[in-house]
Amino acid sequence: MDADVIARDIAAGRLALRLDVEDFHAGYAQVLDRGDLADWPGFFVENCVYRITGRENWDAGRPIGILYCDSRAMLEDRVFAIRKTAMYAPRTVLHFISNVRVTSSADAGTVTAEANFLLVENLIDRNPRLLMAGCYFDRFQREGTRLLIKERHCVYDTLTVQTSLVYPV
Amino acid sequence: MDADVIARDIAAGRLALRLDVEDFHAGYAQVLDRGDLADWPGFFVENCVYRITGRENWDAGRPIGILYCDSRAMLEDRVFAIRKTAMYAPRTVLHFISNVRVTSSADAGTVTAEANFLLVENLIDRNPRLLMAGCYFDRFQREGTRLLIKERHCVYDTLTVQTSLVYPV
Amino acid sequence: MDADVIARDIAAGRLALRLDVEDFHAGYAQVLDRGDLADWPGFFVENCVYRITGRENWDAGRPIGILYCDSRAMLEDRVFAIRKTAMYAPRTVLHFISNVRVTSSADAGTVTAEANFLLVENLIDRNPRLLMAGCYFDRFQREGTRLLIKERHCVYDTLTVQTSLVYPV
Repeated sequence: MDADVIARDIAAGRLALRLDVEDFHAGYAQVLDRGDLADWPGFFVENCVYRITGRENWDAGRPIGILYCDSRAMLEDRVFAIRKTAMYAPRTVLHFISNVRVTSSADAGTVTAEANFLLVENLIDRNPRLLMAGCYFDRFQREGTRLLIKERHCVYDTLTVQTSLVYPV
Repeated sequence: MDADVIARDIAAGRLALRLDVEDFHAGYAQVLDRGDLADWPGFFVENCVYRITGRENWDAGRPIGILYCDSRAMLEDRVFAIRKTAMYAPRTVLHFISNVRVTSSADAGTVTAEANFLLVENLIDRNPRLLMAGCYFDRFQREGTRLLIKERHCVYDTLTVQTSLVYPV
Repeated sequence: MDADVIARDIAAGRLALRLDVEDFHAGYAQVLDRGDLADWPGFFVENCVYRITGRENWDAGRPIGILYCDSRAMLEDRVFAIRKTAMYAPRTVLHFISNVRVTSSADAGTVTAEANFLLVENLIDRNPRLLMAGCYFDRFQREGTRLLIKERHCVYDTLTVQTSLVYPV
């Protein structure tokens, strides 16, 4: 193979990888935006980490957060808890995910990536408002043709967090 | 052809299709963001549906909305009406379209896709503010190398809609 | 080569080019979002133009703005000045860049492109808020495998600009 063909294959590989990650985000966000909470744990491997934490904790490497789950079973418990306890004000949340950056990939099927997220909340009788802005720091694992989350750290830049944020990010 | 080559071609096809849809959105938004209203109907086939409706109506399958047009001629009438009647406060609107999901495509040249949109309004002497957040549910038809809208349902999650929203979404 | 192969190569070229531009935006935004100001001039060629201006000036072709730099050395001076003088309120800014449009490319390695940007500001004890919304009008120059900015015009639609905007866009 000549250099051009190899370069094109590498470029195609990068393209395909970012496409996969972007597709993942779009599917993940859609499930949450529609309120299909029961489908949310399906985006994670069984032995996963899901965390929501502030930028200060992230930058300092502190393994804490306002939410920390270390298995898919814990995510399922969380879905159950939200459904039992949440008072549903008539509101919806929409995710806007952009600036996707694939930071590494390995043949073993692991991909690390980052993206910016913006959560827009719609409440009755109000203009839409910004609920949260931050970054996803992700480690994906490929299972068959799908990417699944091995680790997702939702790092919010927002310095105050809405108490209404019982919902996954 | 071996399986790898076929897989790569399929992946390239998916990539190319999402690229096309994203290009469409970028071009469509640019025309509206610049205020080039007269060019807006050119993104639709003649026999099209364009609708703006709330999430509740969409979820319930109700064929109503705050705006319903079922031909390009109606869109052109609308452009004419806006130009005649709108009081132009010095404002601009910017579209932010993300989370593009191609949901199906057929050889016949039809593509269905979804995306999230965020409209940001800029008025004089105020901070920018969120005007509307929602989803596009689209059916595109390929004409030559271009995609055109066969059906666009702009489904807003926003529960109150600004009266200033005489402008296309 | 048959027409299909040529068409596919052109499509792959367009894909690769938009990927490059999107990667550029993601990297550029990340540096600013993290506050790594010293790395910011590295995204520009030495003999560059960087400008922040309002839509009215842009539309009228007036070569003015609230900020105008015409070399990388000026950007470096600016970074130095911000570091010396800025009172850092505990705040962060996140970029959301979307609707990327490659408008032209030449074999000589020059690419022109546009994109919408949204700056979200996070201040302590407040909800996140929109700081600025607008468009990048860019001319890139390829150096090796990297794109660098030859000209970046940050055109804000926002009609009032926060005085806190001493920071690059």
